[in-house]
Amino acid sequence: MPRRQLANAVRALAMDAVEAAKSGHPGMPMGMADIAEVLWNDLLRHNPADPAWPDRDRFVVSNGHGSMLLYALLHLSGYDLPLDELKRFRQLHSKTPGHPEYGLTPGVETTTGPLGQGLANAVGMAIAERRLAAEFNRPGHAIVDHHTYVFVGDGCLMEGVSHEACSLAGTLGLGKLIALYDDNGISIDGQVSGWFADDTPARFEAYGWHVIRKVDGHDAAAVAAALQQARAETARPTLICCRTVIGFGAPNKQGKASAHGAPLGGDEIAAARAQLGWAYGPFEVPADIYAAWDARPRGAALQVDWQDRFDRYADEYPTLAAEFRRRMAGRLPADFAAQAQAIVARFQADAKDVASRQASQLALEAFGPLLPELLGGSADLTESNLTHWSGAQALDASQPAGQHLHYGVREFGMTAIMNGIALHGGLLPYGGTFLVFSDYARNGLRMAALMGLRVVHVLTHDSIGLGEDGPTHQPVEHVSSLRLVPGLSVWRPCDAAETAVAWAQALTAEGPTALALSRQKLPHQARDAGQLAAVERGGYVLADAAGEPEVILIASGSEVALAMAARERLAAEGVAARVVSMPCLERFAAQDAGYRDSVLPPSVTARVAVEAGVTGLWWRYVGDRGQVIGLDRFGESAPAGALFEYFGFTPEAVAAAARATLQRG
Amino acid sequence: MPRRQLANAVRALAMDAVEAAKSGHPGMPMGMADIAEVLWNDLLRHNPADPAWPDRDRFVVSNGHGSMLLYALLHLSGYDLPLDELKRFRQLHSKTPGHPEYGLTPGVETTTGPLGQGLANAVGMAIAERRLAAEFNRPGHAIVDHHTYVFVGDGCLMEGVSHEACSLAGTLGLGKLIALYDDNGISIDGQVSGWFADDTPARFEAYGWHVIRKVDGHDAAAVAAALQQARAETARPTLICCRTVIGFGAPNKQGKASAHGAPLGGDEIAAARAQLGWAYGPFEVPADIYAAWDARPRGAALQVDWQDRFDRYADEYPTLAAEFRRRMAGRLPADFAAQAQAIVARFQADAKDVASRQASQLALEAFGPLLPELLGGSADLTESNLTHWSGAQALDASQPAGQHLHYGVREFGMTAIMNGIALHGGLLPYGGTFLVFSDYARNGLRMAALMGLRVVHVLTHDSIGLGEDGPTHQPVEHVSSLRLVPGLSVWRPCDAAETAVAWAQALTAEGPTALALSRQKLPHQARDAGQLAAVERGGYVLADAAGEPEVILIASGSEVALAMAARERLAAEGVAARVVSMPCLERFAAQDAGYRDSVLPPSVTARVAVEAGVTGLWWRYVGDRGQVIGLDRFGESAPAGALFEYFGFTPEAVAAAARATLQRG
Repeated sequence: MPRRQLANAVRALAMDAVEAAKSGHPGMPMGMADIAEVLWNDLLRHNPADPAWPDRDRFVVSNGHGSMLLYALLHLSGYDLPLDELKRFRQLHSKTPGHPEYGLTPGVETTTGPLGQGLANAVGMAIAERRLAAEFNRPGHAIVDHHTYVFVGDGCLMEGVSHEACSLAGTLGLGKLIALYDDNGISIDGQVSGWFADDTPARFEAYGWHVIRKVDGHDAAAVAAALQQARAETARPTLICCRTVIGFGAPNKQGKASAHGAPLGGDEIAAARAQLGWAYGPFEVPADIYAAWDARPRGAALQVDWQDRFDRYADEYPTLAAEFRRRMAGRLPADFAAQAQAIVARFQADAKDVASRQASQLALEAFGPLLPELLGGSADLTESNLTHWSGAQALDASQPAGQHLHYGVREFGMTAIMNGIALHGGLLPYGGTFLVFSDYARNGLRMAALMGLRVVHVLTHDSIGLGEDGPTHQPVEHVSSLRLVPGLSVWRPCDAAETAVAWAQALTAEGPTALALSRQKLPHQARDAGQLAAVERGGYVLADAAGEPEVILIASGSEVALAMAARERLAAEGVAARVVSMPCLERFAAQDAGYRDSVLPPSVTARVAVEAGVTGLWWRYVGDRGQVIGLDRFGESAPAGALFEYFGFTPEAVAAAARATLQRG
Repeated sequence: MPRRQLANAVRALAMDAVEAAKSGHPGMPMGMADIAEVLWNDLLRHNPADPAWPDRDRFVVSNGHGSMLLYALLHLSGYDLPLDELKRFRQLHSKTPGHPEYGLTPGVETTTGPLGQGLANAVGMAIAERRLAAEFNRPGHAIVDHHTYVFVGDGCLMEGVSHEACSLAGTLGLGKLIALYDDNGISIDGQVSGWFADDTPARFEAYGWHVIRKVDGHDAAAVAAALQQARAETARPTLICCRTVIGFGAPNKQGKASAHGAPLGGDEIAAARAQLGWAYGPFEVPADIYAAWDARPRGAALQVDWQDRFDRYADEYPTLAAEFRRRMAGRLPADFAAQAQAIVARFQADAKDVASRQASQLALEAFGPLLPELLGGSADLTESNLTHWSGAQALDASQPAGQHLHYGVREFGMTAIMNGIALHGGLLPYGGTFLVFSDYARNGLRMAALMGLRVVHVLTHDSIGLGEDGPTHQPVEHVSSLRLVPGLSVWRPCDAAETAVAWAQALTAEGPTALALSRQKLPHQARDAGQLAAVERGGYVLADAAGEPEVILIASGSEVALAMAARERLAAEGVAARVVSMPCLERFAAQDAGYRDSVLPPSVTARVAVEAGVTGLWWRYVGDRGQVIGLDRFGESAPAGALFEYFGFTPEAVAAAARATLQRG
């Protein structure tokens, strides 16, 4: 079977599926089909029958608009992705959405499409592989030993996140990471030379990568040789630069932007079939081509071999083997829930007045020893974010077993790498930066939410409480804007106990968590057992009036203490005020109506919310009669105390708002 | 006067101001003082008495935490920044905030602090200079002829935006851009070698830059020679790599992370004074040092010379000269308001059913000929964003006078470059990408808002209406999350006429605008003159019931037509419904209460808001009794029509919600 003909099966499926969908991207699959054919048929160690095999090679399509390449590969090689699904490309609830989606389609290792992030995910996967190998392998037992392959296009390489991730990958010397660059000279606007003239090989050499230049991406032997050369290099990641023709095989559109992102049309598809020598009908793949692609026999053999080796390892190291199984299954230790509850109770009992970023570090000290899967880090703000703890050693090129990664000043890269670490499995990544710089990483947080990845973002210096660094560094809109991302849990705890709860929730969440933490000290709040248990509901009554409250003060984070002080003032005036602490709005909104109404009784319409940030999301909770004390403008550079005073975050102002709201009733 | 002593004045002021503020960053100013001294005293063409002189060199501190370097330079060279302001470093309402803020302090060319963006701003300034030179200079008349200098640190170079901006700068061959790299080997977490091992000179050569390696940043002669070499290169931007010692002069902290971001302390400051040979007290600068720094005489002479040349130019080219004056003053043409009104009226009369992205292109066709200052572009989605128009030629390395820039797949770079173009003056930048990728650029949009820059973002494919590309590309939370950025105007127009109004508002705004535009066709809506005039109020009655409405349907963008259809349904059932179109929530919120109450009468509490995105911000407008039809989850990959149906955006569902809301009353 000529290799070209195997690749043509991918091309034909891509043309046909895009045509059937009346939308999509045929150019990349047709251009990269030969490269993919060599990688998948010669080298990729995977088992279509078990996409969760822990030691499989990871394969990422960072230029995710070429999703039909991946779907064709999965289908042809024997994954549970029948032809009918390819025929339903881009249709509602098919397993072949416009861009590959993790969790939806077997064999899809990550959701890609937003350019550059798949490449960063791959860096994360390679970091995870190396970290787990260092942790679990023993002499004579290489149970973690696989490669990460990633396809990238010009768009990925123009994106800044490619710089962040690849610079770090070079510094860390990730020898099992192999990137294949689809150098076709075309992006959506046309010939890239007018806007992208980088010497990409030289750029990657500057990052410390092993670079293989000028490989003909349509010459299977050349691609195979380059891949062998890449695998032989173990100290540096490899970039293989493949010259390709976008839309290869479509006689009138190949090499042009018109092949990129639209159906080729019936005539051009017919002409392409003729040019490629592909004599089969739409979605028709002959049996001998299927047979040549079928990766199941080899995959099963590979996995059986690995399982044998793992069983021998388990005999010799039963505890390690059990731990490996637990970790790769993404299960927390059996007693984690009880331990977490004890930790939360201890934080409440300790009654410490600390900044919530410091409480977060104390939480890491408590949770860290229980969870060896934690892999922390910070985007060059370790001492500010307080992401390190006493049990965490640095992970770097020479210490792959470390627990804390200095990500450098690379917020987006860190976030997308964390996603890759989580996707790999076996590790639970957390990382820190200033909350304001979540902006830089925002789409990476979104991708974690879309994929439902358990990652934890430690976002400190969470309001004007940051102080003197000024408005560029004061995140007035960020807490609220993160709350808008579906599936992202945003916690803004008011003291150490709430911080411990937030961490416990983050560590057990089915998706990502953003912890918004203060720079400044926050006073401990008293709680009984019921209140402490209620924190995880996202909102609860922290302090109540003797009877029915006349007014409810709702606050989060550093403003909870303010609400408590206002309550005392009001009490002295004979006004019965309830204080509701609401560290997680999404969680509170997800409670049943009975609980929500018990916290915010509909009959009590005099309500004031206070948060040192934009007000938009709070109107839902204060209602028609209520008032929100917030900050719908940028901050100023000054000491934090002066700023809270200047912007009206004082007990007097909160009490006055409460009185005004009462009078309005 | 020894040059070192001049630099020591900067060092001393930086140490003293940080000490007085009890916070700040002494390390960078002390490390870069010698470089700055050479640049400012030998080369920089500026006039402290007129910070707005159009042909001044631009100077940007991209590593903006080193703000005291800039404040010291401005103070010493004679800008209106008295010593008292330096003594009030980082205090409320001083002119010396923690990070440099554009518009607050004379001589500050851009707000910096979020790393990497100042570098991208500088790229934008250099693009603007070249574009204006091509447009306005005439043989023998170089009225636009200045350099852009930018200081960058390791952090800037680790950030991805540095890749995007510098790759484009290299491609465009910006010969008058000179970057000075503070290569001190230290970032906040310590020695950068563990996380940043790039061969930065090689990296920049790969971008096509002219790179000068291994300059001793404390050797004035070496720095001066490098700067001359940089200025001699006119076809490529230059990177000068300066080896420096962070905190130079502080005997126990120099060269260490401890010099970076905290006061040195009294003892170390005393020791530094001794080591540097700086025998003066805190904030004390002797007269001869001031005299040597004073840039006013030379600056005045430079500007007088330029003014003479400009006057001769004005004699020969009076129209061009007047246009140059108008443009650099940031004034629109005198008749712009009337023309804009006529354009809006024409769009209403034309009654076209078009996608709002297409309406935006029609608006560009209308406004473009009136505004030669427009400099458009797209992040590689020109044909999707429809940012080009018939009068716009491409701007590239060989055509510096063009009106449309192919930014490449560089959303953040584009945004920060647009900010730089706007900051330079003389041009009004707009740029396009998919709305979902505003995530990549978010902090750049924020910086535009913080600085109050007139830039326009054309953000297309604004909801699940994007269709088959799926959830990675469907911006369900983005419209609302952009609304949360203070000072950013977000318009989501419902048809061509509203799109024209949104463009007219964007072109006259005192800050940035985000236009959220549909991929899919939107039907024209009828309006009388009063309604058309009311669009700019952000929310208005588009269709009313005969008498007092029973229920109000509020919508934006593509969902306005849905609300209109629901209104017809309700009318058929005898329910009187008003439709409020709300293309700009912030603008509506800024109207007086009388107007707001006329649109949303408090007496009508049955209200339904409908928008194909997250619901959080709409509760404010529907109130306690109301309902919001939105999408608090990610989308799906499918044709747009199927998605609107699946997610319940149908006239039936809106009408049903209205009925339910009425019954609830």
